[in-house]
Amino acid sequence: MDLGDDHFHDECGVFGVFGAGEAGHYTYLGLHMLQHRGQEAAGIVTSDGKQLFAHRGLGLVQDVFDAAGLERLPGDRAIGHVRYSTSGESQIKNAQPLAVDYAHGSIALGHNGNLTNAVELRASLERDGSIFSTTSDTEVLVHLIARSKGRTTVDRVADALQQVRGAYSMVFLTKRELIAVRDPHGFRPLCLGAMNDGHLISSEPPSFDLVGGSFVRDVEPGEMIVCDESGLRSLRPFSEGGQHMCIFEYVYFARPDARLDGISVYDARKRMGVELARECPAEVDVVIPVPDSGTTAALGFAEAMSTPFELGLIRSHYVGRTFIEPQQSIRNFGVRLKLHPVRDLLEGKRVAVIDDSIVRGTTSRKIVQMIRDVGAREVHVRVSSPPTRWPCFYGIDTPSGGELIANRHGSTEDIGRFIAADSLGYLSVAALHRAVGGDGYCDACFSGDYPVAFEEPNQKKRQLGLVGV
Amino acid sequence: MDLGDDHFHDECGVFGVFGAGEAGHYTYLGLHMLQHRGQEAAGIVTSDGKQLFAHRGLGLVQDVFDAAGLERLPGDRAIGHVRYSTSGESQIKNAQPLAVDYAHGSIALGHNGNLTNAVELRASLERDGSIFSTTSDTEVLVHLIARSKGRTTVDRVADALQQVRGAYSMVFLTKRELIAVRDPHGFRPLCLGAMNDGHLISSEPPSFDLVGGSFVRDVEPGEMIVCDESGLRSLRPFSEGGQHMCIFEYVYFARPDARLDGISVYDARKRMGVELARECPAEVDVVIPVPDSGTTAALGFAEAMSTPFELGLIRSHYVGRTFIEPQQSIRNFGVRLKLHPVRDLLEGKRVAVIDDSIVRGTTSRKIVQMIRDVGAREVHVRVSSPPTRWPCFYGIDTPSGGELIANRHGSTEDIGRFIAADSLGYLSVAALHRAVGGDGYCDACFSGDYPVAFEEPNQKKRQLGLVGV
Amino acid sequence: MDLGDDHFHDECGVFGVFGAGEAGHYTYLGLHMLQHRGQEAAGIVTSDGKQLFAHRGLGLVQDVFDAAGLERLPGDRAIGHVRYSTSGESQIKNAQPLAVDYAHGSIALGHNGNLTNAVELRASLERDGSIFSTTSDTEVLVHLIARSKGRTTVDRVADALQQVRGAYSMVFLTKRELIAVRDPHGFRPLCLGAMNDGHLISSEPPSFDLVGGSFVRDVEPGEMIVCDESGLRSLRPFSEGGQHMCIFEYVYFARPDARLDGISVYDARKRMGVELARECPAEVDVVIPVPDSGTTAALGFAEAMSTPFELGLIRSHYVGRTFIEPQQSIRNFGVRLKLHPVRDLLEGKRVAVIDDSIVRGTTSRKIVQMIRDVGAREVHVRVSSPPTRWPCFYGIDTPSGGELIANRHGSTEDIGRFIAADSLGYLSVAALHRAVGGDGYCDACFSGDYPVAFEEPNQKKRQLGLVGV
Amino acid sequence: MDLGDDHFHDECGVFGVFGAGEAGHYTYLGLHMLQHRGQEAAGIVTSDGKQLFAHRGLGLVQDVFDAAGLERLPGDRAIGHVRYSTSGESQIKNAQPLAVDYAHGSIALGHNGNLTNAVELRASLERDGSIFSTTSDTEVLVHLIARSKGRTTVDRVADALQQVRGAYSMVFLTKRELIAVRDPHGFRPLCLGAMNDGHLISSEPPSFDLVGGSFVRDVEPGEMIVCDESGLRSLRPFSEGGQHMCIFEYVYFARPDARLDGISVYDARKRMGVELARECPAEVDVVIPVPDSGTTAALGFAEAMSTPFELGLIRSHYVGRTFIEPQQSIRNFGVRLKLHPVRDLLEGKRVAVIDDSIVRGTTSRKIVQMIRDVGAREVHVRVSSPPTRWPCFYGIDTPSGGELIANRHGSTEDIGRFIAADSLGYLSVAALHRAVGGDGYCDACFSGDYPVAFEEPNQKKRQLGLVGV
Repeated sequence: MDLGDDHFHDECGVFGVFGAGEAGHYTYLGLHMLQHRGQEAAGIVTSDGKQLFAHRGLGLVQDVFDAAGLERLPGDRAIGHVRYSTSGESQIKNAQPLAVDYAHGSIALGHNGNLTNAVELRASLERDGSIFSTTSDTEVLVHLIARSKGRTTVDRVADALQQVRGAYSMVFLTKRELIAVRDPHGFRPLCLGAMNDGHLISSEPPSFDLVGGSFVRDVEPGEMIVCDESGLRSLRPFSEGGQHMCIFEYVYFARPDARLDGISVYDARKRMGVELARECPAEVDVVIPVPDSGTTAALGFAEAMSTPFELGLIRSHYVGRTFIEPQQSIRNFGVRLKLHPVRDLLEGKRVAVIDDSIVRGTTSRKIVQMIRDVGAREVHVRVSSPPTRWPCFYGIDTPSGGELIANRHGSTEDIGRFIAADSLGYLSVAALHRAVGGDGYCDACFSGDYPVAFEEPNQKKRQLGLVGV
Repeated sequence: MDLGDDHFHDECGVFGVFGAGEAGHYTYLGLHMLQHRGQEAAGIVTSDGKQLFAHRGLGLVQDVFDAAGLERLPGDRAIGHVRYSTSGESQIKNAQPLAVDYAHGSIALGHNGNLTNAVELRASLERDGSIFSTTSDTEVLVHLIARSKGRTTVDRVADALQQVRGAYSMVFLTKRELIAVRDPHGFRPLCLGAMNDGHLISSEPPSFDLVGGSFVRDVEPGEMIVCDESGLRSLRPFSEGGQHMCIFEYVYFARPDARLDGISVYDARKRMGVELARECPAEVDVVIPVPDSGTTAALGFAEAMSTPFELGLIRSHYVGRTFIEPQQSIRNFGVRLKLHPVRDLLEGKRVAVIDDSIVRGTTSRKIVQMIRDVGAREVHVRVSSPPTRWPCFYGIDTPSGGELIANRHGSTEDIGRFIAADSLGYLSVAALHRAVGGDGYCDACFSGDYPVAFEEPNQKKRQLGLVGV
Repeated sequence: MDLGDDHFHDECGVFGVFGAGEAGHYTYLGLHMLQHRGQEAAGIVTSDGKQLFAHRGLGLVQDVFDAAGLERLPGDRAIGHVRYSTSGESQIKNAQPLAVDYAHGSIALGHNGNLTNAVELRASLERDGSIFSTTSDTEVLVHLIARSKGRTTVDRVADALQQVRGAYSMVFLTKRELIAVRDPHGFRPLCLGAMNDGHLISSEPPSFDLVGGSFVRDVEPGEMIVCDESGLRSLRPFSEGGQHMCIFEYVYFARPDARLDGISVYDARKRMGVELARECPAEVDVVIPVPDSGTTAALGFAEAMSTPFELGLIRSHYVGRTFIEPQQSIRNFGVRLKLHPVRDLLEGKRVAVIDDSIVRGTTSRKIVQMIRDVGAREVHVRVSSPPTRWPCFYGIDTPSGGELIANRHGSTEDIGRFIAADSLGYLSVAALHRAVGGDGYCDACFSGDYPVAFEEPNQKKRQLGLVGV
Repeated sequence: MDLGDDHFHDECGVFGVFGAGEAGHYTYLGLHMLQHRGQEAAGIVTSDGKQLFAHRGLGLVQDVFDAAGLERLPGDRAIGHVRYSTSGESQIKNAQPLAVDYAHGSIALGHNGNLTNAVELRASLERDGSIFSTTSDTEVLVHLIARSKGRTTVDRVADALQQVRGAYSMVFLTKRELIAVRDPHGFRPLCLGAMNDGHLISSEPPSFDLVGGSFVRDVEPGEMIVCDESGLRSLRPFSEGGQHMCIFEYVYFARPDARLDGISVYDARKRMGVELARECPAEVDVVIPVPDSGTTAALGFAEAMSTPFELGLIRSHYVGRTFIEPQQSIRNFGVRLKLHPVRDLLEGKRVAVIDDSIVRGTTSRKIVQMIRDVGAREVHVRVSSPPTRWPCFYGIDTPSGGELIANRHGSTEDIGRFIAADSLGYLSVAALHRAVGGDGYCDACFSGDYPVAFEEPNQKKRQLGLVGV
């Protein structure tokens, strides 16, 4: 059902604890704070110094783990993972952390990102007699580790990672060590925290607060952090990659209360709204967001336009996944379950609606209609990011090229007609970079400039549905 | 667990359909839009003109009903109910609609409100040989109907209602008739809607939109609406009561997108913020709401103060009821699961936090602390309603007098000290009335002026813990 | 699905505890031992001397109650109930014990049996303003108690029971008293047990052993046993009825390890087999039972025939209610899930199959076919009771007259042809009485001689489908 | 909880279908008939000729699969598995069939048995870089297949199996082939069936009947059966091993209605009873079995002793796994939940109780006590197999040597004293062989003669707790 959630989806979040009492429990709480990064599966692996304990399941963190389950995850070190996955693959076998035994004991790992040479590596490993139990790209890493001649776990993990390309913010756990790695491009975020004498790792800093810990610093691109009984050390086993943090984390994925690589997500989103007002102003009576993801940019937009900001769409807190539609179908059913317009605010008004992005366009079209239905005179849509024209190969679930409205409908005008808005405006790529600030970002989904090469010449084209062109 | 939901709770919402195809299914959707009025139990009774079909259960609407369950609720007329209840009474037997057989066939009813002479009536009925299966005040009505000598269902329902006092917005269903009644004071809202040739009844208008219907008008205090095969008629079987619509519906209970008795809830809340700025201004750098209930008033407050409005507290969409706390307890655990401050926004700032009400004060105290923890220089709390000093006897679940912080701690200063704010300001009762506009409200929870007398002299005092004073 | 369970079904079992520590828990165990008397719903009500606590649910005893649920049933007195009901009525609202409040406090009751004047009484009560929440005949009793002018609970219960007719073995619980009553005819069994200083009540004695108690004696027809703080006393508030214990309890309903009214069920069943051998001998190579209900009679039959007894049909221990049949349907699917023939035992043999009764005949037909399929030369069916031609009105669920094969197919020969047996033999009514021994039985389902009159002249005929004949 | 199930447990059952419409559904039914071989996990993998589909879960077959789940298992070929496992390992990851991808596509396998050189092979594979996801010995086979240089699936499977030792009745599935193999010793049973034009494989023949198929022949020790589009062929890729079918299958594991390797299990069990009467007669009034596993032997014993056979212990059909015991513990609680003695049959009698085996002795002790409690004068226990002194390494779960009562208590007299019987008699090993008939059995659990060598000299001793002796 279309519940008005027309977004790219981050594929995962990771969390790690070393040297803190109830590590499994803290990981459970940390994952709760990363729940927005993956709602389809969750898992935790802990170690008590002697062996690993694991539990994984499909669903939200609070559904996968109960009190009895947490008690079966003892130890003072742990890693955890939340996963988003496309519907066809929503299988328990793909839930992470993966945990296996090999010649040097047990090892578990959780991965946020996507390896761009996984198919190639998998074929090669299979030729050498490896078996695969999942359809996930992450599994090749376990084989590379197991086949490495490295003397220590750190050597073997570094050895394996030197063979893969693409995006990976990862946590590894053996019975004695916690290892956290961020790929040389730093595609996905990864942070280091502290808690009493222990160390924390997380995709985003706000998760440190819930467990009573605090943010220390971002893990740097290409950095490997190793925690064991002798303390914490930082290694740099990779050649430089050039920083390419995903700019979409600032647009939509990350929590607004997070600061990533030194930049406040909240501030960046507000500046996107300001830039948007500069590039695509709208003469309106009221500015409203599509809640909650468009709210911060809408505040910036309204402020820059000196136009009143109002919450013109009310979001339900009770929308689960299993609503039943009557036989005589209701117009815009899914979106209506989640969003409802405030008639008294919108009737007779010229309205600017701010959203963070448009992927397929169907939800935007329904929202525009819903606002007109309560009597808005004009509906102007403003999007706080550029048109999303290219799929992501670095850990974001994007629909195939043909489904992207910005790919199908060439121009902004065409898209505006499709969603039936009185006007439509996107932020430019340059303005987005200005709004976020700093440099070294991956903006491939907007620009098509992919910082990491593909496995084979035609893969990119094939995935975009362009082979033969 | 304290999840930061320190509010009075509306005890119920009701919905009704007459003459529209899949009435059970439409009621299911209507109840979803009233879910905020009761999350502990839900029920639907339908009629196909020949007999009644019922299903009730504990939990949210989407959990109580599945596709197979809705198919077992055939017919083109239906009533539904969502219920909030204090924890001790969260039993399936108290779920509504009640449905019974009596001499004249089957009748079902759903009640939003509270009868103030229920104890007295129940004792009298028991003396005459009646049995009671629930602990709900609503059950006395069924007995009064069954014992009435009235010739028609309408006569018997009117006869029964003439014997009760207090608050009731109710829906009744027999196999042929739908009856909706609002008590003479009009304590709780009730609205009439239309859908094709059919009629709709609901506690709040936005639920009409989801099923594709439209708002017609409010049911008036003292009005009884009867729908049967001969059409819809309006009766006035009660003596005048003087209108006393619950003013707290505008403060917190109702949806912001609702218009009740001609007044937009959104507008009223924004004006509360404006009035609050006049009465209790705060020299601050930023105004933030406690989301979502304080958001609209905060917009008004910020506007009136010409101070930036920001979303300084991020609310989680994933908080269920069963979070497990670690043994080594975490400070402000429950509130943190639900709310997280945006450090980059609040650090070093003077902050005004706007909430709609303070009941026990413990949550406010945790929120103030949480904001200080991220470095706010000053934290000023502003409440868009007066201190809640008195329990409600008209359908709102209020803690006993002793738990109400405004009852325990005499002055605003004392409360401010308890929640550890740099300053605390409440809206005055007069300003609240100004903000809502119009007249004829019950504000007993703020003022102690109860429009309907109690069953016995000491009841009020006893409930307030004041007997002996 | 037809799982080969073509039987009449006892509608209920009851259990009671007075003055024994964990009374709710003991009742849970007692009900487990009565599970064969009702698998569709179970309930327990306890008292701690101050108030009643109740829990009811659909399903087996072990599914309805968990550890946390049992802890919410405190007190040293309790009653419990297991219920069988026809599919259409398998609703939670009909689960027992019923528990209500009335003028003199709370009362709960559990009923095994059926009241033959319930419709009449219900109509009269409704005329006087009573409401009914269930479709069960038991609910009239609660109203009669509530309307009684009796001074004590015992007076009111006796007063109410004097107005009903039919079959009732019942347990009542108030906060201070446990009352057990068996109707003057003694249709259904009821026993008294002891446990330390406490008293036990049960439909069948083996349930006493599981809780560590012991059998004291049968409750006599027309006896009312009252347990309160002053001890146990026996009353006889009813006029004599003439004993009419249900003879089918000995044929099938009761546990084989029970002794009811002084007669061992196991012994009676074995004697039925012996009598059957006398009346309908079969020249065969092997005697096999339909397990488990035909096993004891088959032992008697084989012994009397001096023919080897073998377990030629293996019964699965893993058959639940939800088996899914493939699209390409399998012959005798349901019966095969539960029973499987031992080919090596039956191939080439003349086989006598002993069953306790035949209701619809469809299962017997499948069993005969299944035995032929593995190569039996002849299949002779012997039934250890007479043809069941008449419905029961005293607490047994019997199909309507038209479904009873002995009603539709007049003669034993016709039935034998329907089930495709080489021969078919039933026990005669006289021989059944001889086998059980003693006298004073109800055998209405075999003979049509109903010891208690019906509410109105034509009811019996109508229920039998004979009106107009 | 001790539910009176003091038995060795078979570790698994396997089923396979090739070329029959709803293969997944037929496998579901076939597994139901093998449920006694494993109740802790179940799984099915199907193929539609293009890819494999898998579902596994913990619990009974009927709980693991629902209608929707079966629809997601399309195709006309399938394999299935039921699993028993010791409690500590009851994890979803060990459920079978295992299914992996490797260089030549996908392969799934289900295993009944135990590999005696798995630890050795696993260590060697790990040294070569293999990873392991389960703790099951079966996983080594997948690696051996993946690393084989064989050209075809058949070559690779044969190559892998030539490297393992021990017990294996297995089914393999690729998208195009079904392969079934029984180890050269034939430790565990395996049968071939037919159904229309399709082929069936099962651990025991009765499962063929439920799906409408028929028994063709036993798979021979050392035989590999391959089904693909060109038909069925039989291969013999292994060197001869000498037949060593598990004799305990006839004593307890197999269904009584099964015929394995040409011998009827029912007949064999009856002959065990006859031999037992010859070797250990008992002068008693009545012979009763411990149901259901002792029943067939008890029939033989009673017949040979010319003593009446009776069902003196009634077994409950409603015992699940989650019964809650009251705080004030009940004597023999677990056994009582499942078995209840028929007092009227046993009181004052000399009783012979026939069981198929005694493992720990605690259940037997409780049963003897329970029979005495209802007044038996003497209780003589007779066991239709020899004392179980040695653990099994070929696919049966046996407690460690120290828990085996026949290991701890040297003599039959000592064991008799422990279980407090008036006398105790076991069948001799020679008589057991006579009863089963034929030759070529493994009787290691009775005799200690293990037909397949162990991985290292001391393993056997260590597992028996004898190292150092």
